[in-house]
Amino acid sequence: MMTVRALLFDTFGTVVDWRGGLISSLDEWGKARGIAADWPRLVDAWRMAYPPSLQRVRTGEREWAVLDVLQLESLQKLALELGIIGLDDAAADEMVRMWHELPPWPDSVAGLQRLRTRYVIAPLSNGHVALLVRMAKTAGLPWDAIFGADVFRHYKPDPETYLGASAFLGCQPDEVMLVASHPSDLDAAAKCGLRTCYVSRPLEYGAGRVVEAIPKPGHFDLMVDGLEELASELGC
Amino acid sequence: MMTVRALLFDTFGTVVDWRGGLISSLDEWGKARGIAADWPRLVDAWRMAYPPSLQRVRTGEREWAVLDVLQLESLQKLALELGIIGLDDAAADEMVRMWHELPPWPDSVAGLQRLRTRYVIAPLSNGHVALLVRMAKTAGLPWDAIFGADVFRHYKPDPETYLGASAFLGCQPDEVMLVASHPSDLDAAAKCGLRTCYVSRPLEYGAGRVVEAIPKPGHFDLMVDGLEELASELGC
Repeated sequence: MMTVRALLFDTFGTVVDWRGGLISSLDEWGKARGIAADWPRLVDAWRMAYPPSLQRVRTGEREWAVLDVLQLESLQKLALELGIIGLDDAAADEMVRMWHELPPWPDSVAGLQRLRTRYVIAPLSNGHVALLVRMAKTAGLPWDAIFGADVFRHYKPDPETYLGASAFLGCQPDEVMLVASHPSDLDAAAKCGLRTCYVSRPLEYGAGRVVEAIPKPGHFDLMVDGLEELASELGC
Repeated sequence: MMTVRALLFDTFGTVVDWRGGLISSLDEWGKARGIAADWPRLVDAWRMAYPPSLQRVRTGEREWAVLDVLQLESLQKLALELGIIGLDDAAADEMVRMWHELPPWPDSVAGLQRLRTRYVIAPLSNGHVALLVRMAKTAGLPWDAIFGADVFRHYKPDPETYLGASAFLGCQPDEVMLVASHPSDLDAAAKCGLRTCYVSRPLEYGAGRVVEAIPKPGHFDLMVDGLEELASELGC
């Protein structure tokens, strides 16, 4: 661990609470807009539509598009399926932009502030740069640099993302650690030679709902319950 | 000016004092290393070698290389010309890395802190991401994102840099202002549709030494004497 110089962070789920944030924003917004829906159901379905939409770009089935475009397409399809009435283009755009302004988990900002005293810290997200800059400003995330998928024109888990961010930072892959709450993301990073830290986020998909199995001890270099614990583990 | 959402900053000369910083670092380092030279003369010659070295990449005369590589090549040539003795590879690398840790002008950090409350702020530099991250951490520059030339694999004044950074930020070119102490950089940005702010840095090349003529009033959208004045002009 002594050779790690930079920490890259998955953002949605690892650093910010997309589900709690979206449900809360939609609830308030829907009341003001006069649009009613089962928001938790929509948010969960929207999140489930996200991996297959990225996959179509990754396989070349569709050309490059940033996350806002993919999220808008998924939303329009889901609004029809779930019978949500009154979503004109402007309303749909507002909903897509809610992904730019998500609340951090309670330990995220304090943990990142400690970690940046010793490490270069940056998101490595399937969001795009503009989204991640907006997220950082609203949530107070003190990044040293921003790596969005549009920098690489590749989505995780494509190796171009992990290796590309390492190269931009002037690091060998084993000098970089990916921090994420998703084992599949971490496994892909490890295949590229990066170090790995699993962050447990039991509320990510809602209380009691597990989407990826919790990894066995020792499967990743580190396993922590939050970014403050990571800062302590790394002596920050 | 009301539509500007993001400010991009030239860094060497505009935000940090490369000449004063390098001379001071080399002076101290030379004494510790037992290497003597006319450091101001070397620094001025090194800086003058910089535009033609970028130009060879821009014209395709040589393949892409980051600034560290170009600076090392220029240094090795100049050390021979100026008869500087004792520069082995490790010493030359240390000298190149001094470009990563340059002091900000006295108004830079306070000005950027004020500007970032209302605008997205980022460097748009011919330095690379790793250099700019290191510079930000040592100088305390509170950037929202980092745009190095390696993100675009183009050096300023290629339009790919100005237009590329605007696109990453989700902005139209006229929603972005370039802030720079070099009229040639600003003229290139203006041709791409960006707004422009000239910052006077009379000490950049040493007291009394003018490399680019001072622009006429009205030639750029704004003319200021530092980043605190820019913050005041923009109501921050």
